[in-house]
Amino acid sequence: MTLGKVFIVGAGPGHPELISVAGYQALLIADVVLIDRLLPEDFLQRLGIPISSKQIVPVGDERSRWSQDTICHELARHARAGLNVVRLKGGDPFVFGRGADEIDFLAAEDIRAQVVPGLCSATSVPTAAGLPLTKHATGRSFAVVTARVVGGGIHAVFPRCDSLVILMGVSVLKNVGERL
Amino acid sequence: MTLGKVFIVGAGPGHPELISVAGYQALLIADVVLIDRLLPEDFLQRLGIPISSKQIVPVGDERSRWSQDTICHELARHARAGLNVVRLKGGDPFVFGRGADEIDFLAAEDIRAQVVPGLCSATSVPTAAGLPLTKHATGRSFAVVTARVVGGGIHAVFPRCDSLVILMGVSVLKNVGERL
Repeated sequence: MTLGKVFIVGAGPGHPELISVAGYQALLIADVVLIDRLLPEDFLQRLGIPISSKQIVPVGDERSRWSQDTICHELARHARAGLNVVRLKGGDPFVFGRGADEIDFLAAEDIRAQVVPGLCSATSVPTAAGLPLTKHATGRSFAVVTARVVGGGIHAVFPRCDSLVILMGVSVLKNVGERL
Repeated sequence: MTLGKVFIVGAGPGHPELISVAGYQALLIADVVLIDRLLPEDFLQRLGIPISSKQIVPVGDERSRWSQDTICHELARHARAGLNVVRLKGGDPFVFGRGADEIDFLAAEDIRAQVVPGLCSATSVPTAAGLPLTKHATGRSFAVVTARVVGGGIHAVFPRCDSLVILMGVSVLKNVGERL
């Protein structure tokens, strides 16, 4: 039997129409969609993807979240059954998105996989809100960081740039402000 | 007469199918498309956009490049003639893309304009090439800079980050290497 293929697709910042045309087409041909818990539940419907013939698998919900290991094994299991699989992730799969873990796992299992980049929320949300990260005359650099380092602390030093985007920082906003 | 609307659309890094679905739809309804000189000439055709009823305007070519001022006035002129206009730009319009200049100009002229973010080449090219800018355990920050500052020199100090993306740096690669 022919193995299926896995598409690791970045959905962008949340609005369905901000997915790429390539991502949309991967969703059209998918037999199984593993959809990120952080994306809106009706993402596929609002995008006009017919879902009646597809298996839609939410990857965890508010209470239970799948481990990265479980997700990788599920992607491989469906592909081995000959199904085309989309792993639909918020933002860009490779920017704070664990896409690299999934690609490495599938490569080791000899399963065909392709990455479809998505709009990275760090750059596209400011754009959509009319806040340019760079301006021709004044802004020549920007940096994107998570508020916390692995282990739970706050960065000791934030990068020096014309614009700074801090992700996942709402709960530690006060501490980050002091550090800046 | 009703004024037309201007869509400032990010085309992404160059492959037509990496444009967003929203960008694709704006192109479908556009009467006029001002297309960036850095994008492939057959971008619209490869995307399957019917162009026979549209006015396609390349914004400069290898030898002559339109000034930002000329582009802004052309966008306004077409919108005042009641036409829907797409200004199609490489990457993301607001990340090193002068989109802010165009939005500010159109707002001052009372012309409706909407930004459609695009895949920023700084994050999507590494993703498409299989080079993650971040990894869960080790990469918690990245920065994007232009190689040169306004005026022509090289940055004195580059931001300290886990991953650093340097744009427009090929011609000054040696100098940048020494500075790092």
